[in-house]
Amino acid sequence: MKETTLHVIGMTCNHCKASVESALNELDGVTTATVSLPDNSVTVVHEDVTQERLVEAIEEIGYDVAPA
Amino acid sequence: MKETTLHVIGMTCNHCKASVESALNELDGVTTATVSLPDNSVTVVHEDVTQERLVEAIEEIGYDVAPA
Repeated sequence: MKETTLHVIGMTCNHCKASVESALNELDGVTTATVSLPDNSVTVVHEDVTQERLVEAIEEIGYDVAPA
Repeated sequence: MKETTLHVIGMTCNHCKASVESALNELDGVTTATVSLPDNSVTVVHEDVTQERLVEAIEEIGYDVAPA
């Protein structure tokens, strides 16, 4: 199990939090995704999923991921 | 047909816009509800619906309405 934290741009409210968590949870290999609105971040616990795939899932629903 | 514009506090994104419009559109007597995020407002075209009922529908889903 790995943990990846990404900085997400554009999440403003609980609807955004739910959308991002849901988009990540739908990916094969993702166990949990938890957004922190105050931190503008999402922490993903996952098996073998590339960071690229996580970023893609977030961008697909209209948010940006800041470079590490 | 009447038109009522209310100042809504707490709408931050397109999810919020959709939630508020949907809550108002569900009311009997409401024809259209259109949120302007830049203006923090919603304009409702309606038949006989009290302003109190409109405010109540907005507050029920977690937003506040500023006094006129």
